[in-house]
Amino acid sequence: MRLERIAIVGSGAIGLYYGTQLALAGSDVRFLLRRDFEAVQAHGITVRVGDRVQSIPADRVGAYASTADIGPVDLVIVTLKTTANAQLASLIPPLLGPETAVLTLQNGLGSDELLARLCGAERVFSGLSFIASNRVGPGEVACFYPGTITLGEFGCAASERAQALGALWTRAGVKCHVVDNVAEARWRKLIWNVPFNGLSIATGGLTTDRILADAGLAAEVRALMDEVTVAAHAMGLEIPESFIRGQLDVTPSLGAYKPSSLLDWQAGREVEVEAIWGEPLRRAQAAGAPAPRLSLLYSLLRQLTSGGPAA
Amino acid sequence: MRLERIAIVGSGAIGLYYGTQLALAGSDVRFLLRRDFEAVQAHGITVRVGDRVQSIPADRVGAYASTADIGPVDLVIVTLKTTANAQLASLIPPLLGPETAVLTLQNGLGSDELLARLCGAERVFSGLSFIASNRVGPGEVACFYPGTITLGEFGCAASERAQALGALWTRAGVKCHVVDNVAEARWRKLIWNVPFNGLSIATGGLTTDRILADAGLAAEVRALMDEVTVAAHAMGLEIPESFIRGQLDVTPSLGAYKPSSLLDWQAGREVEVEAIWGEPLRRAQAAGAPAPRLSLLYSLLRQLTSGGPAA
Repeated sequence: MRLERIAIVGSGAIGLYYGTQLALAGSDVRFLLRRDFEAVQAHGITVRVGDRVQSIPADRVGAYASTADIGPVDLVIVTLKTTANAQLASLIPPLLGPETAVLTLQNGLGSDELLARLCGAERVFSGLSFIASNRVGPGEVACFYPGTITLGEFGCAASERAQALGALWTRAGVKCHVVDNVAEARWRKLIWNVPFNGLSIATGGLTTDRILADAGLAAEVRALMDEVTVAAHAMGLEIPESFIRGQLDVTPSLGAYKPSSLLDWQAGREVEVEAIWGEPLRRAQAAGAPAPRLSLLYSLLRQLTSGGPAA
Repeated sequence: MRLERIAIVGSGAIGLYYGTQLALAGSDVRFLLRRDFEAVQAHGITVRVGDRVQSIPADRVGAYASTADIGPVDLVIVTLKTTANAQLASLIPPLLGPETAVLTLQNGLGSDELLARLCGAERVFSGLSFIASNRVGPGEVACFYPGTITLGEFGCAASERAQALGALWTRAGVKCHVVDNVAEARWRKLIWNVPFNGLSIATGGLTTDRILADAGLAAEVRALMDEVTVAAHAMGLEIPESFIRGQLDVTPSLGAYKPSSLLDWQAGREVEVEAIWGEPLRRAQAAGAPAPRLSLLYSLLRQLTSGGPAA
C-alpha cells in the first residue's frame, strides 16, 4: 500500500495539525486550503504543541486551492467539518486514483458511510481523532493535547492496509490504535460527546464541571449515556459498564472544560448536530432502541444552533 | 357556608383581577399587597378587559400590608406565585377562623397539598385559572382573555361547599366549572403547560407557533404530552386521547403565543419550575411511570432559569 502522496481535505485546526505531522515525517502532504490559502502560501504552517513549535516553511508547503490542482493521491484524509459533508461529492473525485485510500477523521456518525457511497467501501478507513487544538490564525494551530487516532477499516476487521495506515501515523509520532471494530469505537466516543457536548449547549453554556455539579444534570448525563449504550447494544456493538464508568470518572479531571461543540456554538460556527445527535438517534430508532432523551436533546440542539451563535 | 369576607394572598395580575371581580360583585375583598401597597391605597385598582375598564376607587379598596392586619376571613384565595410558597406558612394562619375556606388558584402541582398540611385538608379547595393577564403598573391589570376557573374540593368530590364557591364566582361574572376530580383537571392543564411552557424556554424563546412549525419539536410536544398522560393514568386519572388532540388542535389559533413561563423568564421573574415540571416528574416517578423527556426538560429548565432572565 503506497502512502506517499497525501491530500488533506479540510484544513482547519485538525487537518493542519495532522497534515503537519505527516509532512514533517517525510510525506508529500497537499493541503486543500480555502480561507488560509494565501497566508499559507506566503508563510507556511505553524503548529504549537505546548512549548514546542513545528513549522512547514512557505517554500516547502503543499498549499492548494482546489482538489483538481492536487490531483490523484495515495491517501485522502478527510478532516472537513461534517456540516460541510455535502461538498465531498465534488471535492473527492479529482483525488482518486485506482488505489487511493480515504480516511475520515471526522466526528460522529455518517461520514464513513457517505464516503463509501461516493468512493466505494473498499477504499474507506474510518478514524477517530482525540485531540484538543484550535486554529489561532491563518495557517497557525495551537494544540493543547497532542492528537491520538483510533482507526479501522470501514465495514470489516482491520486488514494489512489498516495496519499500514497505523504505521504511517506511528512513524509521524502520532499515537494510533488500529481496531477491528471501528463502528464500536465511534459509538464509544458518542458516550461522552452526546451528553456533554449536548448539555453544554442546551444549558446555555455550562462547562463539564458545572454540568456534573448539578445532581439533576449529572443524572441526565448518565441517562443519556445509557440510551447511547442501549442503542449500540441493539446494533450488536459492545459498550461495557466499565467503559461508561471510566468516561464519567475521567471527566472531573478536565476541570472547567468546554466541549468542542460548545466552542463552535459560542464562536458562531456550525455545530455538528447531525453527526453527533441526529444520525445516532436515527440509527437507535431504526434498531428499535428507545432514545427519548436523545430525541428531545437533538430537537432542542437543532433549534438552538440554527440561529447561529449563542444568544 | 359564609363567603363574605375574602382575603387575596398574592396581588399580582391574577389576584388583582379576580379580587376585583369579587369586590365589584359586593364581597368584602382584602388584598394583601407588597410592592403595590402605597399605590393601591392612593389610587385603588384598575382592571382593563378589552375596552372595558373596571375600578375599585381608593376610598373603597381593601388594601393591606400584612395578613395580620387583614385578620380572619371567610375565604382565603391564594394567587401567590408557587415560587413563593414557602411564605404561606407564615402568611396564612392570621387569616384562619374556625370555618375559613382556602382556595388556591396557583399553577401546577403541590400547592393544594401544602395548604392542606398548613391548614387542614378539609378547608382546602383547589382551583385552576385560565386567564391571560398582565400587571401593567402598580395596581393596574390588563386582561386579554377573561378568566375562567375550574375548581374542586381537595381530595374528594365536590360537596355543597364547592358548589357555593362556584356560585360565588358565577355571581361575580367569572365562568366557573365545579368538578369532582380537580386533581385530574390539574394534570390535564399540565398536558399543555409541560411541553409548551417548557420548550419555549429550552429553545431560547420560541413562541408556540414556531415550536409547532418545527417537525422535530412538534413531535417532542406530543411525546411530552404522552409522558404526562402515562403518569396521570398511573395515578388513576383519566386523560382521553380526544383531550390531547383538542389541546394540539387549539394551539395554532393562539398564533405567536408566549407561554406565561416564557414571559416570566424573559422578564427576569422566577419561573414556576417545581410546580409545573419538578412535582409532576416526582409524582410520575413515584407512580412508576417513565418520564425521560420530562426528566431532561426539568433539569434543563432548573439550570436555565437559575441565573435569572434569558441570556
